[in-house]
Amino acid sequence: MPQPLPSWRSGKARDAIVEFVNAVTVQGGVDFVPPPERIAVFDNDGTLWCEQPVQVQVAFAQARIRQLADADPTLKDRQPFRAFLEHDLATIHTLGKEGVFEVAFAAHSGVTIETFDKLSKAWLAETRHPQFGRRYTELVYQPQLELLDYLRANGFKTFIVSGGGADFIRAFAEQTYGVPPEQVVGSTVNTKLQETDGHLELMKLAELQSFDDREVKVQNIGLHIGRRPILAFGNSDGDLAMMRYTLSAPGRRLALLVHHDDNEREVAYDRDFRLSPLVEALDKADDYGITVVSVAKDWAEVFPPQA
Amino acid sequence: MPQPLPSWRSGKARDAIVEFVNAVTVQGGVDFVPPPERIAVFDNDGTLWCEQPVQVQVAFAQARIRQLADADPTLKDRQPFRAFLEHDLATIHTLGKEGVFEVAFAAHSGVTIETFDKLSKAWLAETRHPQFGRRYTELVYQPQLELLDYLRANGFKTFIVSGGGADFIRAFAEQTYGVPPEQVVGSTVNTKLQETDGHLELMKLAELQSFDDREVKVQNIGLHIGRRPILAFGNSDGDLAMMRYTLSAPGRRLALLVHHDDNEREVAYDRDFRLSPLVEALDKADDYGITVVSVAKDWAEVFPPQA
Repeated sequence: MPQPLPSWRSGKARDAIVEFVNAVTVQGGVDFVPPPERIAVFDNDGTLWCEQPVQVQVAFAQARIRQLADADPTLKDRQPFRAFLEHDLATIHTLGKEGVFEVAFAAHSGVTIETFDKLSKAWLAETRHPQFGRRYTELVYQPQLELLDYLRANGFKTFIVSGGGADFIRAFAEQTYGVPPEQVVGSTVNTKLQETDGHLELMKLAELQSFDDREVKVQNIGLHIGRRPILAFGNSDGDLAMMRYTLSAPGRRLALLVHHDDNEREVAYDRDFRLSPLVEALDKADDYGITVVSVAKDWAEVFPPQA
Repeated sequence: MPQPLPSWRSGKARDAIVEFVNAVTVQGGVDFVPPPERIAVFDNDGTLWCEQPVQVQVAFAQARIRQLADADPTLKDRQPFRAFLEHDLATIHTLGKEGVFEVAFAAHSGVTIETFDKLSKAWLAETRHPQFGRRYTELVYQPQLELLDYLRANGFKTFIVSGGGADFIRAFAEQTYGVPPEQVVGSTVNTKLQETDGHLELMKLAELQSFDDREVKVQNIGLHIGRRPILAFGNSDGDLAMMRYTLSAPGRRLALLVHHDDNEREVAYDRDFRLSPLVEALDKADDYGITVVSVAKDWAEVFPPQA
């Protein structure tokens, strides 16, 4: 059998993962966890795929707002739409993650969830990252793809718990990560059940239902998953509550934090990224028992090989 | 191989199920559905287990309100608590499903989700049905247990979508139905993330978050499952939107409705059961393309054999 996790370099982070998985899967071991309880939760933006210079969904919202502005030119003079239309990153960054995503969700409303799925898939298929030049779904982290596979091969059920929109992530997560729609927890808008010619459809409304960030991630784990994860992986303070919740129970548990410290192969950033800062989780990782993963040191590859 | 569905009598309902499953699973067939899209949703109360004389969770809430009334005797004079304490079914029935469940959810608050799980499991283990004398988890429908197994053996993923409380159903659904917590969608209360001695816990609040009935079932399918089911099974008007939504898309689809018409082996009821009436779904089943399942005629057994 080939060694698991080939894109993970030997070191503390890889060892922590392999030792944890061995401990919870050895039948009869003191740390054994039955398969149904092997729940692993992953943040998406910055944990499974690149979130620089802005989260992918922000770029998607920009594209959609451009379409809406063609229909209603007054949007061009109104903030925060203007910032999106002019790609004014400085202003966009000041909106904060929730502000940006709220604009995004408004831009995503007025369609059925099935139409939204088609729009998302089409945009992801045709759009390339402004710097890296590859499709966004190719800017996923190769070590994390291997980790998801490794966990599932060891009886884990893998979930995404993201501040991004659940319906947007569902449009690609099954094909890209092997995570089916029902295992994607994310931010959501309210929906309306609408009948047209005797057919029922769910229409997305421009009303934020849940902004799945910080403590809301834990509340949504309770709502959607209904049991406490034993492994959590994040990359920002928005994931800290989820990581701490995962660690806050008896038995063997693992929380991991990606630290983006590689300006050669990706983008180095942490506390100054205003759309999703990493401060407390990094400063207190040791206190909380969180394992920090360095992109520069722990990952032999960052992105999958070019086709 | 033994015949599937031994507790289903030959007839239109059983034929409809077997023909449907064959059609969507034959590789290369015109109606083939890939396994990840084989989503089946089941109501719980009255569809998977007995909901007479009141939904099981109402009985659980009564027991809990009795405990609360010991601590606060003024509850004994206040409605709707008094009706629960005096087992005044006539008054309880007038509250409607949402009214009753709201009282129930209030009675379930003030504990962590893990404590609630333990309370639910303990009560289900020690309590017996007032007429049938068996544990509630033994008053599940044997034909439905076989159907859940049959669907899963054919690559379906089975979900519960119930007006009952998600956390209550999660306490027994995995063991009783083979449905894990993350595949249980139900009514929910808001939760609060609480830190005690450095440990994070989710506390259940006395605030209704979602009453998972009628059109809300469809909205919650969108929220939790993220794709349209191809099979839906219910027993009341509360399930009609979910059944119609399931049928409202191209491709082969199946919606089934239990009609409780057997006063010998269970309880015969439909339009006059005020806690969860069956009127429109029965009257318009043919128009909507819903297959009616008669307990008296289609089920050879109702409950599992006595141990």
